Amino acid sequence: HISNSVNPAKLKSHRQRWNVRPSEMSKKTLNPIRAIVDGMKLTPNPEKPMIALSIGDPTVFGNLPTDDTVLQAMKEAIDSHKYNGYAPSVGYQKSREAVSNFYSCPEAPLEGKDVILTSGCSQAIELAISVLCNPGDNILVPRPGFSLYKTLAVSMGIQVKHYNLLPEKSWEIDLQHLESLIDDKTACLIVNNPSNPCGSVFTKDHQHKILAVASRNCIPILADEIYGDMVFPGCDFQPLAPLSSDVPILSCGGLAKCWLVPGWRMGWILIHDHNDIFGTGIREGLVKLSQRILGPCTVVQGALESILNDTPPEFYQGTISFLKSNSEICFSELSTVPGLNPVMPTGAMYIMVGIEMEHFPDFQNDVEFTERLVTEQSVFCLPATAFEYPDFFRIVVTVPEEMMIEACIRIREFCARHYRPRSQDSHDLDQ
Amino acid sequence: HISNSVNPAKLKSHRQRWNVRPSEMSKKTLNPIRAIVDGMKLTPNPEKPMIALSIGDPTVFGNLPTDDTVLQAMKEAIDSHKYNGYAPSVGYQKSREAVSNFYSCPEAPLEGKDVILTSGCSQAIELAISVLCNPGDNILVPRPGFSLYKTLAVSMGIQVKHYNLLPEKSWEIDLQHLESLIDDKTACLIVNNPSNPCGSVFTKDHQHKILAVASRNCIPILADEIYGDMVFPGCDFQPLAPLSSDVPILSCGGLAKCWLVPGWRMGWILIHDHNDIFGTGIREGLVKLSQRILGPCTVVQGALESILNDTPPEFYQGTISFLKSNSEICFSELSTVPGLNPVMPTGAMYIMVGIEMEHFPDFQNDVEFTERLVTEQSVFCLPATAFEYPDFFRIVVTVPEEMMIEACIRIREFCARHYRPRSQDSHDLDQ
Ligand SMILES: Cc1ncc(COP(=O)(O)O)c(C=O)c1O
Ligand SMILES: Cc1ncc(COP(=O)(O)O)c(C=O)c1O
Repeated sequence: HISNSVNPAKLKSHRQRWNVRPSEMSKKTLNPIRAIVDGMKLTPNPEKPMIALSIGDPTVFGNLPTDDTVLQAMKEAIDSHKYNGYAPSVGYQKSREAVSNFYSCPEAPLEGKDVILTSGCSQAIELAISVLCNPGDNILVPRPGFSLYKTLAVSMGIQVKHYNLLPEKSWEIDLQHLESLIDDKTACLIVNNPSNPCGSVFTKDHQHKILAVASRNCIPILADEIYGDMVFPGCDFQPLAPLSSDVPILSCGGLAKCWLVPGWRMGWILIHDHNDIFGTGIREGLVKLSQRILGPCTVVQGALESILNDTPPEFYQGTISFLKSNSEICFSELSTVPGLNPVMPTGAMYIMVGIEMEHFPDFQNDVEFTERLVTEQSVFCLPATAFEYPDFFRIVVTVPEEMMIEACIRIREFCARHYRPRSQDSHDLDQ
Repeated sequence: HISNSVNPAKLKSHRQRWNVRPSEMSKKTLNPIRAIVDGMKLTPNPEKPMIALSIGDPTVFGNLPTDDTVLQAMKEAIDSHKYNGYAPSVGYQKSREAVSNFYSCPEAPLEGKDVILTSGCSQAIELAISVLCNPGDNILVPRPGFSLYKTLAVSMGIQVKHYNLLPEKSWEIDLQHLESLIDDKTACLIVNNPSNPCGSVFTKDHQHKILAVASRNCIPILADEIYGDMVFPGCDFQPLAPLSSDVPILSCGGLAKCWLVPGWRMGWILIHDHNDIFGTGIREGLVKLSQRILGPCTVVQGALESILNDTPPEFYQGTISFLKSNSEICFSELSTVPGLNPVMPTGAMYIMVGIEMEHFPDFQNDVEFTERLVTEQSVFCLPATAFEYPDFFRIVVTVPEEMMIEACIRIREFCARHYRPRSQDSHDLDQ
């Protein structure tokens, strides 16, 4: 009796041994900073205490605490017992309105419905890319630029095209290069202003030109404005959206930088769409995507209105005047170091420093340069290869002033030791 | 001169008009609960105040506050000024260790490195599915079951296969059905215990049998144990991992349910892998994926050790004895209602109630039944179609006792009005 001798379960193809592999998506989620830093031999000089100028976290040295108003708002949110349950996945209406009121202006009015609260600006960027792009599309990102854009895009099968920023023009966008990259698969232009890693702030005029490119080519913009308002006295931050009459813009921001609480993971997307180009599709898409993980911590949401409305202006001023002063110290110290070309920032919390590699024949590139700076001087700066921009390094200017000064002295000593006045000669001598 | 007359920019294909559409992924992120509820006409009877038995949020009625220890821990974390900066994307080591200590046991020892902190259990599930599955794979999920599994999987191009739970066997898994679904594309088995929406708790013996299926077929398990320890007195919660000697398990949990703070978005993955089947690949994959949005709120992370270690046993006992008592009220009330078949839960915070649809000819299905229950009696229960299980509805038992009683009275009245003793006859009469 044939049918008896065949066990149908046995016929079915199923695994006979364990074979659990990480998904392609997880393998494609590459963080270039980690990839580069993990590959570096970072053994500090035991005779000198380590100075890390690499970490984009303003809180690590304790010299830049958040304001008491901010902490008080959190404690009141906890004591109210009102913020323990689930909020809507896009955030409490009241908290969304607090954000829209804070950022609304006559040229780009915002209401609560135009705000999506997210788990940090990182998730804001993730949702914005996710809603605008399909696999096979491409996005335009700045070079040098914040690495998360590429990390996220590549993991989603979205191609990344880098447009150049011009150090000699205060890191303005090379607009011709930008426009030359656009094709019919371009789903989004990412503009980061003020910039990580450049510390640059675009003028109004330059932003008008960026908008003209987007408008001509019908490309929506993801404006990463997490460092908005973090600009030095004498310079003005101009959000992008109020300058545009047609280009639809998702502006991403959050509490991380200006309020100095990056760990709290409070971010947002502001939906600017005066001509109804996003329509309901993009808005509904964002709502749907927000339902995957249900938004940011409700306690922080509950505190948000008071954080935005009650933090005194002196707090922000204190932070930016410190950042400016530290930047000036660093810039003026390093601009007299032969072989280095710092670019003075006007905002955010970074300085980019160019390395004249031809004068440092001991090193192949910025990664080796910064690696040896650790070994010899116990100073760690991120090589700008991490931002797709070799032969530069990035300094974080949030460290205490004494540390900044000491770090500059050590960088000077390091460069003096390795600098060769005329690279060709020294190169010949080496051989 | 030809090359002069041709503007290469003009030749390039680029968009001439705006056409911004939401991505396929956002369109595929479907929340069936929203889809069903938004499609219902939910107009309560103006003469009766609304009673919502639909919301899986234990905090909405104020009768189940979290413990003071939990709130105190948060305030101390804020006052310490130590938890404002970025944590590692998988969480502070100390907070991960607090979780591993809390859940470690001799049969399934855990260390800090085996814990990934996430933005709610939702993100834990998202990361676990993301790391285990590729597009084209399939996962096995319970029916009835929590809808997020399918929402996430479908959005990632992963196929969902539903295995049946058996109401007549206290919602145990139909193991034969489960095993029949497995093929060589099956990447993961999701086991939810205690269960939403069933309120069931598996015996040790049944879990051994589930593990045997996974082991035989070499399928890793995602154990959604967010309702772990939320079981009624007299019943024991047995985590899955300590019962297994070989099957690798990602156990997902969080603070939402047992600590009654779902809004705080604190979840975790416990990596159980005694035979090193996940190896470093899955662990590294999870770390990489966590870097996309950088983990949960640091204030909650800072409070975690104290929340887990200092919350008094009486708090948990108070919650579960309340849930048991409310469940018993609801069960005993509804089990004497002709046409309804409630299934007594032993854990979590839900009761499933079967509807003998043939006795309610006024309604086509559970959606119409629950819709009319709102219109006539202002009582809202989720139709179990939202859990892929028609002809049932789900009651949340976290509401205040008086509300539970009143709701049962109204449900009885509603059923009495629409019940037809022999459906065939009444159906004939209708025509
Ligand atoms: C340019 C830029 N965008 C976004 C972020 C992410 O911000 P968040 O910590 O709120 O996720 C950072 C963080 O360093 C950043 O530099
Ligand atoms: C079975 C199950 N898993 C996971 C979750 C999500 O938990 P969280 O709020 O921590 O994301 C829920 C929430 O209701 C649930 O019922």
